[in-house]
Amino acid sequence: MKNKHRHQLNAKEMSKEILNGNAVVLACAITLCESQNPADRKYADELLRNLLPHTGQSLRVGITGSPGVGKSTFIEALGKYLTSLGKKIAVLAIDPSSKKTKGSILGDKTRMQELAKDPLAYIRPTATGHTLGGVADKTREAIMLCEAAGFEIILVETVGVGQSETAVRSMVDFFMLLQLAGAGDELQGIKKGIMEMADGIAITKADGENEKSARRAQAEYQHALHMFQLAESGWTPKVLETSALEGKGISAVWKMIESFHSFTLKNKFFQKNREQQNLQWFRESVDQSLKHKVLRSKTALGKIKTYEKKIAQGKLIPSQAANEMVKSLIT
Amino acid sequence: MKNKHRHQLNAKEMSKEILNGNAVVLACAITLCESQNPADRKYADELLRNLLPHTGQSLRVGITGSPGVGKSTFIEALGKYLTSLGKKIAVLAIDPSSKKTKGSILGDKTRMQELAKDPLAYIRPTATGHTLGGVADKTREAIMLCEAAGFEIILVETVGVGQSETAVRSMVDFFMLLQLAGAGDELQGIKKGIMEMADGIAITKADGENEKSARRAQAEYQHALHMFQLAESGWTPKVLETSALEGKGISAVWKMIESFHSFTLKNKFFQKNREQQNLQWFRESVDQSLKHKVLRSKTALGKIKTYEKKIAQGKLIPSQAANEMVKSLIT
Repeated sequence: MKNKHRHQLNAKEMSKEILNGNAVVLACAITLCESQNPADRKYADELLRNLLPHTGQSLRVGITGSPGVGKSTFIEALGKYLTSLGKKIAVLAIDPSSKKTKGSILGDKTRMQELAKDPLAYIRPTATGHTLGGVADKTREAIMLCEAAGFEIILVETVGVGQSETAVRSMVDFFMLLQLAGAGDELQGIKKGIMEMADGIAITKADGENEKSARRAQAEYQHALHMFQLAESGWTPKVLETSALEGKGISAVWKMIESFHSFTLKNKFFQKNREQQNLQWFRESVDQSLKHKVLRSKTALGKIKTYEKKIAQGKLIPSQAANEMVKSLIT
Repeated sequence: MKNKHRHQLNAKEMSKEILNGNAVVLACAITLCESQNPADRKYADELLRNLLPHTGQSLRVGITGSPGVGKSTFIEALGKYLTSLGKKIAVLAIDPSSKKTKGSILGDKTRMQELAKDPLAYIRPTATGHTLGGVADKTREAIMLCEAAGFEIILVETVGVGQSETAVRSMVDFFMLLQLAGAGDELQGIKKGIMEMADGIAITKADGENEKSARRAQAEYQHALHMFQLAESGWTPKVLETSALEGKGISAVWKMIESFHSFTLKNKFFQKNREQQNLQWFRESVDQSLKHKVLRSKTALGKIKTYEKKIAQGKLIPSQAANEMVKSLIT
């Protein structure tokens, strides 16, 4: 299917199909963007350029939480709720660990079986085989493509490995942290830095025997959040109790996200944040591109090897060797 | 004093003074290395090249712990103990936050008053005004200079802000984490990643009313450490109770470090680790040097501005703009 579309449609035709909301072509386009093949990359670049004017209108929501917090279940419940309102939603994921370890968090679509069947929803397995920087790039492009295809809300999930929360935070409008009822932040090993990034916290599994501890957790987190400085957005993060099982709090979560949206549109933070995110994306890409262009040539690889040998033998000071080598590669 | 030495001695003479253990010249040399002035840098590079054959023989020990854990007191106690054994020790610090916030952790020498007076000890305030990468570089150079000056044990302290633990870990042989008695890891917000980096944990303030909780903490940490995979070094991290106040456990800490040293010399990890650290330093320096050389020219700065404007206006895709710009700057 992928090859058929790639060969039969040129970038212009493909753009048109995506703008028409053709989900199969959308999937092909995301695959093209993920490809390491230079010809595919060129094609993808043209496609993205064509679609650029049609991107940006979605609300981008990042979701993080430790394993076991019930992320899939929460996303499925939120997704179903949103499609019941008639909204088109896409679910993407960042999981830089997926190539090495337990497999992709979204690779298995059975994880969100109901949502996957919903015609208003699009679930995309995570890009693999890249570094975090690479995965982040691909996800940003996938966001653009989904927006061009008319998806109004993009949920970007992260497994919280390494720096992936920071990466997701840098590409979404609203960042939500899921925390388990019945366990304090200390027990879940949540880093203070993650709490500081959150625009909202949802306590999950706040049902049955957990209700009491969920209420306590809600109060504790709300208290903890008050100790942080006010975010640049001017928004005070909220903590909500939810239960995907009972459907509790899901509409409240959406209401919170909507309030944040109108609040930050009004105070212009929304636009400013998008601008800053694009500039950050640019700077990160410059760094990556620079390394790629200068350090991947045959000459460069040879020099790197020679220098590394001398350094291992203790004959050169690494920083001086680096300066010398870079000078020789650039001029 | 600084200028006098800088102007009166050439790099060769300065090297000789450092090899003779002249602490004043050592201090000047470290200052030279920290300077952003290109002439100073050239001088510093020559100096480091001269001294390279005389570096590497010390035992490098990294020490981290949250604020309030009693780091200075611990380091002073350990330092005094080591000088009492006739060892020459140097204390360096990495604190990338010091330029913005509460001032340098080591800027105030009164913090370790007794140790500062000890003729066998050298305490150096942290380098400031640099990024973490810069600070790390300067600290690595300071380690080399101290080694050339005959210091046998280098204690490198980190405040644990941002990625500074990782930076220190990458330049020491033994990495020690200090944890307060009377508080579990959860309460101290210690990240699992830091525990994984530790070759040893010292429970501090294990005296008076804290004794019981210190014993419990010791058992808990030892248990927690057992759940991690065996480190590449083959060494099983130990957890010790200490009290700087009562001088308790300080000699045991040193014994632990010495065991680690002979253990890793025997299984060759010590040498391998040093080699890997040098290669990592090289790679980091290459990245920095590359950015510095390509992106700081007037042309580059102008181009960056132009591209950033277009990106902010939503006219370009950041990653594509980056590729285009880098291409134009390199060829």
